[in-house]
This record gives sequence, C-alpha cells and structure tokens, in this order.
Amino acid sequence: MSVTDLFDPRGIAVVGASETSGKIGYEAMQNAVEFDGPVYPVNPSASGTIFGREFVSSVTEIDGEVDLALCCVPAPIVPDVIEDCGKAGIGGAVVFAGGFGEAGPDGEELEERLIEAASEGDVALLGPNTSGFLVPEEHLFATFATDVDTIPAGNVAVVAQSGGLAYAIAFQAENEGVGVSAMVGLGNRANVGFEEAIEYFDGDAKTDSIVLHVEGTDDGRGLLETCRRVETPVVAYNVGEQDVGDFAESHTGALTGEYELYEAGFAQYGVPTVRTSTELLDAGTALASSPRPDGPNVGVVTAQAGPGIAITDRLKAAGANLPSLTEETQDIVEEILPGITFSANPVDTGRPMPEFGDVVAAVARDDNIDIVLVYELYEGGLGYPTDTLAAVVDEVQKPIVFASGGPEAVINEELAELEALGIPTFTAPERGADAVSALVQYAKRNAGPDAAVAGEEVSVDD
Amino acid sequence: MSVTDLFDPRGIAVVGASETSGKIGYEAMQNAVEFDGPVYPVNPSASGTIFGREFVSSVTEIDGEVDLALCCVPAPIVPDVIEDCGKAGIGGAVVFAGGFGEAGPDGEELEERLIEAASEGDVALLGPNTSGFLVPEEHLFATFATDVDTIPAGNVAVVAQSGGLAYAIAFQAENEGVGVSAMVGLGNRANVGFEEAIEYFDGDAKTDSIVLHVEGTDDGRGLLETCRRVETPVVAYNVGEQDVGDFAESHTGALTGEYELYEAGFAQYGVPTVRTSTELLDAGTALASSPRPDGPNVGVVTAQAGPGIAITDRLKAAGANLPSLTEETQDIVEEILPGITFSANPVDTGRPMPEFGDVVAAVARDDNIDIVLVYELYEGGLGYPTDTLAAVVDEVQKPIVFASGGPEAVINEELAELEALGIPTFTAPERGADAVSALVQYAKRNAGPDAAVAGEEVSVDD
Repeated sequence: MSVTDLFDPRGIAVVGASETSGKIGYEAMQNAVEFDGPVYPVNPSASGTIFGREFVSSVTEIDGEVDLALCCVPAPIVPDVIEDCGKAGIGGAVVFAGGFGEAGPDGEELEERLIEAASEGDVALLGPNTSGFLVPEEHLFATFATDVDTIPAGNVAVVAQSGGLAYAIAFQAENEGVGVSAMVGLGNRANVGFEEAIEYFDGDAKTDSIVLHVEGTDDGRGLLETCRRVETPVVAYNVGEQDVGDFAESHTGALTGEYELYEAGFAQYGVPTVRTSTELLDAGTALASSPRPDGPNVGVVTAQAGPGIAITDRLKAAGANLPSLTEETQDIVEEILPGITFSANPVDTGRPMPEFGDVVAAVARDDNIDIVLVYELYEGGLGYPTDTLAAVVDEVQKPIVFASGGPEAVINEELAELEALGIPTFTAPERGADAVSALVQYAKRNAGPDAAVAGEEVSVDD
Repeated sequence: MSVTDLFDPRGIAVVGASETSGKIGYEAMQNAVEFDGPVYPVNPSASGTIFGREFVSSVTEIDGEVDLALCCVPAPIVPDVIEDCGKAGIGGAVVFAGGFGEAGPDGEELEERLIEAASEGDVALLGPNTSGFLVPEEHLFATFATDVDTIPAGNVAVVAQSGGLAYAIAFQAENEGVGVSAMVGLGNRANVGFEEAIEYFDGDAKTDSIVLHVEGTDDGRGLLETCRRVETPVVAYNVGEQDVGDFAESHTGALTGEYELYEAGFAQYGVPTVRTSTELLDAGTALASSPRPDGPNVGVVTAQAGPGIAITDRLKAAGANLPSLTEETQDIVEEILPGITFSANPVDTGRPMPEFGDVVAAVARDDNIDIVLVYELYEGGLGYPTDTLAAVVDEVQKPIVFASGGPEAVINEELAELEALGIPTFTAPERGADAVSALVQYAKRNAGPDAAVAGEEVSVDD
C-alpha cells in the first residue's frame, strides 16, 4: 500500500462526478479540476463533458495515469468501486460517504467489506466518512467542501480525526495568513490512520510540523510510537476530557474516554498537547517556523507591562521556567535603558522605543535563555524592530516568538516580514504565551543532555 | 467629583501639547483634534498654532468650555497642572506620566500630592501612569497611542487596570469587527478606579456590558460590591494566578497574590471570570449583544461532528449543563431529519443543509434550553440560516451564539448580518464554547428562582 498514491497522485478520478450543483460529486469535481495533473470524471450513467473533461464509465476504462480516486458514491456501492480501483491500478482513494463503522452493525459489515477490497487491491484508503484532504501547494483539493481553494500553502500538516475540525483549523490558518502544507480528515481510518499519515508527512519536504486532532483510536500505542519515531515535531489536540463518548462514537466510530491516558502518553513520547484548535495551529506554526528549542528556559521582553504580566502568569501556569538573566545581559539592558522599569525577567521597557530591538537581542543572546517571547503593541512611526531581529534570529538560532496588537490593516504587512524571518507572530498576548508553552513542552519532552533548566527560579510540570 | 467631566467632556485641553512628532504631547494632540468639540493646546513655552488650534499658556487662560485636561507633562509638574485645572473648573484629567506610586517612596509622595490637588480642585483623575481612554462614538481619543482612531464604536466597555492590555483588547475588538463603547486604562487609580468607572459605564447608554482586567486593588470588596450593584453585566479577567507580584507591583503599584480570593469573590458577586483577553472580549460581546440567559442549560446544534464534540467537551469542562431535549423537540428534529446522526443534545446534522436553521429553531424553542450554541462550517451556495434565525431570535429571547469557519473574505459579511440580529459570532469552535461558558456562569451566578438546571444530566461548578 502506497500512501504516496493518495497524497501525491499523478492524476485523479472523480467517481460519481455529477452535473448537479450542490451534490458531493459536483463539488468534488469542481475542486479536483484545480489540480495541475489529469482529472477524469467517472459516471456510468453520464455522458459528454463536465468542467471540460469527458465522462468515463468506470475507473477501469481510464486511459491515463491516475493514482487517486475520489469516491462520491453512496456507501453500499463503495466496496465495488474500490475493487475496480484495485483492478485499475489506482493506489489511493478517498471515501466521503458515511454509513460505515460509525453506523451500527450493518455499517460495520460494509466497512469490513470495504477494508477487504482495499487490502486486496492494494489501495490506500482515506475514510470512509471523511471530507477528504488538501495539499494547497499542488492545488490538490480532494474534497467536496466549498471555498477551500484560497487556503494558502504553508508548512504545517493538519491531521485530524474529524474532517470538520480539520477544516476549522485550515480556515483559521488561511485567516491568520499562515497556511498549511496539507490538511487531512481521517474519518473512520479504514486503512490510512494516524500512523500512516504522520509517517507520510514526516517524509514530506513541504511539512515542518504535524498537528493532530485526536478523539480516540484503538491503537493508541501505535500512534504514540509513530510520534516518537518521526523526526518532524508533532503537537496533539486530544479531545474528550469530559464524557462525550456516545456522541464521539456516533461520529467516527472511535471510543473516547481515555483522555488521561493519551495526555500521559503524549507527554512521555515527546508530543506537546494543547487545549483548543487555535492553540494547535499556533503551536504547529511556532514549531514549524522556529529553530527547535534547546531547553525550556524562557526570556520575556515586553514593551507594555500589562500584557507582559498576563503572559508571565500564563507561562508560569503552563510550567515554563523564567530564569534570571545573566549579569552580563542585565548590564547590557541597563546600559541601553537606565532605570528600566523591570530589568530582571521579564524585561519591561515601559513603552516601545528605538532601542527595543537591542533589548530583545540582548535577551536572545543570554545563555540562560532558550526561547524568547516578545510583546509589543504597535506604535506608528516606530514600527517593529524587524532589522535588528533579522540579524539576531540568524545569530542565536533560538525560537523568537513575537506577539503584538494593532489594527490588522496597519500591522499585518510588518508582521509578515517578521514571519518571513522565522519569527512566528500572534495578535493576542495569551496566544503568544500558549505558543511558547508548546515550545517549552517540546523542549522538556524531548530533552537532550544539554536541556537543563537554567537559573534560580525552577518549575517543572512534566 | 464628576466622572462625566472625564468621560463625556464638552471640550479638551492638551497640557504639554508639542510640535515634535513622536512626543506624547504631539501624539495626544493629534488624537484629541479628532474630537467633535473644542480642543485647546496648552504650553507656556509655545506660540502659534498646532493642528490649526492656537496655543494657550495655561489651562486658566482658556476661554471656552473645557471639562477634560490631557496632561502630557513630566511627573514632577503634574500636581501643579492639576491644581490649575481645579482653578479653571476643569473637572476631569488624564495623567499619562509614570513615576508615581509605582516608583518607590519619592513617587508615592508625588502621588499623594497629586491626589490632594485633585481632591481640592474636585478633579476626576484617570491615572497617573496610564495610556488614557477612548470613546470611539464621540471621536474622543484621550491617549498618546497611535492608530486608535479606526477602533470602531461598539457596546462593550473595556475597563483595564493596564493601559497596554486595554489596547490589546480594543485592537482585537477592531480586528474582530465588534468595537467598543469605551476603552479605559486605569493605571494607578489616583481617584478614578474600578468602582467609579464601572458605575459610570453602567449609566452609559452606549454600553451593554463591562469587561474588566484586574491585577489587584486595595479595595477588592468595593470593586465586588460595585459589580453586584450595577445593572449592566460585568465580566472579569483576573490576572495573577501565578507569582508575578514583583513585576505587577512595578507596574501599577498594585499588589497581586490574591487571585483565589478574587475568583471566589467574582463568583459570589455574580461576575463571570475568564482566562484570556480574547475570552474577555468574547464574553463581553456575547453578554452585550444577546438577551440575558434565564438559566444555565445549553443546547448545542452542530453541522459537523468534530467541532461539535470539541465544543461539548469544553462546555462540560466549564460546568455547563447540556440537558436532554424535550420529546416534542426530538420529534420535530427527527421529522426534519429522519435518522439524524445524533439527535439528543448536541444535535448533529452531519452536514450543513437547507433545514439546518429549522433544527436550530426547534432547539431554541425547547423549554429545557436557556442558551443555544450553533456550529456550522460555511458551505458556499447554502450560506447561513440567517432568515430562519432572525425570526427565532425575536421569538425566543434567548442567547443564540453562532460559531463557524470559512475564509474571512467569504463569511465576514454574512456573519455581520447575524451579529446585527443580536447573534454573536465566533470563528473558532472553542471561542464559541468559551463565550457560552461565560453566559452559563452569568446565569448561575445571577440565578433567579426560575433558573433551575434542567433535564437529567446535571453538573454544577459553582
């Protein structure tokens, strides 16, 4: 079974392609034709063309290189279609239909037939009961969802048990201007599950972090071991702290109720965990765009005390360590800003000022500091210390996370410049703190011999 | 002392107005001239005009109706300026300078002199050590901060101990398209503190909810009793769970470290509390734009299971009660959607569909339900069920909170239509859940005799 056929196909067949707008077979076809390779609409009862492509009666009749079939047909027909895919040498398929394992005994039987067909035909099968996947850089929109072709290419792969949540995250990525390398809704995980997806995206050159949405799986250990094995950083959003078992089971047929076990497992296997979809995206973005942190010690530099206090409070609650700065750094900071408001850690400059970037640079260079979190409300006429940070980020090779506030119309362009330097940016103080907390978790959970907790003030959460 | 002079002045004096761009006296003047009333630059060592207004040598020389002085002068001069304000009959002042109570014994002495001058002159004094306040609807930008004149008018009053955090929230409000009725950074609270501000905005026709950022105050009981006394809903973001005492004290001279006492106090005095600035804004928006909930019972309707499960998990963790729907409602839902995925509570329609609004309407009409939370990813060609919701929101007079996902360019216009109906909208599933959790807290903490917890499934957190 080759997951590459699924996620990196040469051509696409849309089985059940339809001329009726609003139908899954129409929407999937409309998305598919954005792909740069050949796309074949398959429907035995249709003729002529759709979106300029001629209908084919069966996948076995396609004369061309097709690796991926999007199955837009009702559940009972799906196993036969997958059998045909196997015969046609199509190695990847997405099954959108529900009515399988999540839908009682009859559905379970149908899913068994489906898995058997996929296995016999050597088909990597995403779903059933999924809204598909996207690879924006390849213009590969293997889904019936609408308005997806503006989701930009990025370097975070979203692998979600729920297609709905996958889209919720991908649209947040679009609205934040960060994008995704891929977005996958696993659905019932007939034969492509977390392990297969994580391994594939670990080997994907476009992907620098993998973020997971997990409701539950019958092979938790396999998932965890895969997370530990891969080189790419993984973050997990583990849902199901409360009793939502009935609802979740009706969803993807997965049993939840093992929330604590998963939380402990992720901690043990090196995976930071988060509490919301926004945090998941932010943590993935921070891990994908920053150098990996060598340790859990955070230096905070703020131009406004109030947000700095809120950030510090939240970081400490998440178990971050804010060590004292070295005397050398303190001397530099005091020289730049005599009588500075609060020159320990956090460093509070009181207001944005031309020297703000130099203060950040001094803290970033401090040997006690592994991760830098900066907060600065935008001030017109002054802007962000982009040039100073450009030099320091190359020099120190530590994560520098930048949180700010201001009107989007004014700040977005300058924030994009920081992001281009490998400095993840966030527009609420606590979002910056949460992203750094994920980096701290990553450092603690993947601690090498050099990852000591620095300084006087020590706190350890896991 | 009249806080109205401060927050609703007839005219403004900018004391220390400067012609040098970047100086506080320049930025404050630039903001002040946006005001619809008269604005006077005051500076004994300047002459001519600035922004078309003629310099005056002292506030006592102003020939016009001025109620508010923006003091852009260094700390040591401030008490004399306030004395002059008293003589000139100026009843409100903002003091931007730091170097008072937060800055050691000398500063404390200076602050005492300042308070005495304000008291003798009957001046309502915001600050010192504040970045001021805004009332966007009046084009009243009493601040030196830049890029503030695009913050739109709304109906949430932001009252923050920290000016920096106040701006962080106001800019989020701008970027979310919700706006604020006012934004106030209290700073050192010389004689205008939480109580005075909350009481003022309780009587303000533009304000439908008041959101607080609290680092600590020496009169916690006064704050809490004010919150209970006022009619307008209040929400609090109480910072300082962890030990950030030194840093906070250097900020506004306030002692933190009483986090748990405040949390308990807010619970007892009817004030929902939140954990981030984003949650604070969202909770304030939900309370300002919805009918007040009669009870804590939440009905969830989702078009996608994954986000619905995440929402349910988060609501339950926050202590929300999701009762069973009445049999009547269940019958209606099953008639609309036979064999619906999950027709208890949450109701999961599996996909957006034309009947989605009818399902929401049925749940909203259910007597077991006090608050409705809807999640629906945007689907092109279908849109949101705006017309159906317009009718039901008028009929049921219950909060209906709408969370969604999609590209902003596509969804923002339709979300604004929902907001205009009094349906607060949020673009991440958990943000919808958090806003509803604040409504649940509000209902529980202000429970009248009718606010019983409905149905079988009961959980109580406070």
